[in-house]
Amino acid sequence: MVALCPDEKNAPCDTRAGKDADSCSAELSGNVCENFSEDGILALLDRHFPTTHPALKLGRGDDCAVLAEKGPLAVSSDLFLEDVHFRRSYFRPEDIGYKALAVNISDLAACGARPRGFELCLGLPESITIAWLEAFFSGMAGLARQHAMVLAGGDLSRSPSLHISLTVWGDSAGHEGFLVRGGSMPGDVLFVVGRLGLARVGLHILEERGREALRDWPDACAAHLRPQPQVDAGRMLARAGFNARPPALMDISDGLMQDLPRLLGQTGGLRASGHGVGFGAEIVLARGQLHPEVLRHAAHYGRDPVRETLLGGEDYALLGSCAPDMLPALNAAIPGLFSLGVVTDSGSIVCNNETLDGLRGFDHFAFGRC
Amino acid sequence: MVALCPDEKNAPCDTRAGKDADSCSAELSGNVCENFSEDGILALLDRHFPTTHPALKLGRGDDCAVLAEKGPLAVSSDLFLEDVHFRRSYFRPEDIGYKALAVNISDLAACGARPRGFELCLGLPESITIAWLEAFFSGMAGLARQHAMVLAGGDLSRSPSLHISLTVWGDSAGHEGFLVRGGSMPGDVLFVVGRLGLARVGLHILEERGREALRDWPDACAAHLRPQPQVDAGRMLARAGFNARPPALMDISDGLMQDLPRLLGQTGGLRASGHGVGFGAEIVLARGQLHPEVLRHAAHYGRDPVRETLLGGEDYALLGSCAPDMLPALNAAIPGLFSLGVVTDSGSIVCNNETLDGLRGFDHFAFGRC
Repeated sequence: MVALCPDEKNAPCDTRAGKDADSCSAELSGNVCENFSEDGILALLDRHFPTTHPALKLGRGDDCAVLAEKGPLAVSSDLFLEDVHFRRSYFRPEDIGYKALAVNISDLAACGARPRGFELCLGLPESITIAWLEAFFSGMAGLARQHAMVLAGGDLSRSPSLHISLTVWGDSAGHEGFLVRGGSMPGDVLFVVGRLGLARVGLHILEERGREALRDWPDACAAHLRPQPQVDAGRMLARAGFNARPPALMDISDGLMQDLPRLLGQTGGLRASGHGVGFGAEIVLARGQLHPEVLRHAAHYGRDPVRETLLGGEDYALLGSCAPDMLPALNAAIPGLFSLGVVTDSGSIVCNNETLDGLRGFDHFAFGRC
Repeated sequence: MVALCPDEKNAPCDTRAGKDADSCSAELSGNVCENFSEDGILALLDRHFPTTHPALKLGRGDDCAVLAEKGPLAVSSDLFLEDVHFRRSYFRPEDIGYKALAVNISDLAACGARPRGFELCLGLPESITIAWLEAFFSGMAGLARQHAMVLAGGDLSRSPSLHISLTVWGDSAGHEGFLVRGGSMPGDVLFVVGRLGLARVGLHILEERGREALRDWPDACAAHLRPQPQVDAGRMLARAGFNARPPALMDISDGLMQDLPRLLGQTGGLRASGHGVGFGAEIVLARGQLHPEVLRHAAHYGRDPVRETLLGGEDYALLGSCAPDMLPALNAAIPGLFSLGVVTDSGSIVCNNETLDGLRGFDHFAFGRC
């Protein structure tokens, strides 16, 4: 594609930075400027991301990649934008590369899928250097390797702002189905895999103190900078659902108070796929369950740690429900799984014996609305 | 995902504009601001884009969509960015929606794939209104409908600049393979399906005169604003290759002079997939073959119309090569296909008896380098 030239408004321009303009292609191609050689980016990509994979018939370098997948695929896309989802002031480039992929993988985990591959679209402002890209790719490639995912293709362009968008896919490894949000029944137990509230503390403290915060709040900062998608847990849950009523499952990206109603079918997110009966829940969150940094942060800032945990945000934990008789086996098999409460037919959410339906709205405004 | 709040740097904020924050989900969810209700965007999406499709087991509304595809898939991604790839001054929102999808579909056409579905990531600045989105979706949905493609999911976010990225996929309709760039042999005939140089004229004249240019240069403007991906031709070419040596094929997005060497394996784009022998070509482009608006534009601005056509850009025509004995059948079956010349073993590109190897570099700088 030809890029417009902002400095020469009246002439079309060919902005390829080098002769091998399409060399990061299929379609890791695009228009980038000045301090990049596209050849350099291609070399970087090839050094960090293998081009072959059992799931690929044809890798980077053509108009399309060709996936060899034979069964159903779970597919998801997420944006990861500077000053919307991250700040370069306290995210190192390797953290940005890591997290952009991690939040996408978390959606695969939420379906019990096995991650397989991804497409990467990168809009790069002029401030980005090749050294920055090197670190960015390194962070992303490390996580991709950990999950045996292949970078099948994508696109590069210069851009007014740093813009990252990914599309990821996963399969069901041949024998399991995918898990969905719908299907909770009154009497089902609610469970979580992962930590709640810790990433919220990390965001707050990093915004306030920058990377200096890492010294005193290492776990909270790590939860925000490098969330760990719960892929193994998701796959075990999918297997558990193979010969029984499958668990309902999602990942908690917007905080328990926003996401629990979605699991229960109370909000619009589920309508398109035909779920959405709208049950309630009774949950228990004891202070003893909370991470020490969550408790310390709440004490320091005069906040209620349970409330902060409920509000959360970017936990990237899994939230699910299942028949009560399934829980003991899940508990034994899945590290980090804990029971949160039960699904009720009341339509409201009760935490530690207090009805919480107003909490979401309240804090939504208390913390400002962009 | 929680968005940062630029106005309240020291506090995390929940920026969901409405209670149904995830309602455009799976993952057409995200953080948008002010003049949007997410419910409104969901309603818009559902009005324009059906949620069911034979290729989908599970549509929008969950953490992932689930594709029902059983065979190999061709996958491609492209960025479409304001003031890099388009300007709002002369692109109507429906044209932006149309072209963002069209340039992606063109990559599927280049593989001979049948388009099936796509993911849409949208970064929206505050200047975007719901009316703008309505028109944008309408342009995109019209083209999606034309190719029976389903919008499986995506992501929405507020963003410093208008940012569109898509991932598209297509199948081989059960019996054909996909076509790739490599495989040209000396003696093969080169062919094009579509028009060369017209979109370049459109870009130039729209940059100079804005939408007023549509009056005097309707075809050139249409070629730039609403390129037509050559899906039918790509699929016919894939079928032609089923019982014979398959044609080599790609789409011309950066102009013939940039893309022809890629087809012939001269540049880096092909290295990753193992092609890349590096042949040459002898081509003929007679003035009589050029569109009247290309000739008129060249005459008006004192340019050489053949040279402008070679430079091109955003033609979204198909460029291919095949064994000579395949050409007559292709010619008869595919409207708009014309013969361009032959593949040689010389390593250089000759047009109308002149060697053109320097042309690309020359004009690359003549038109400015961003």
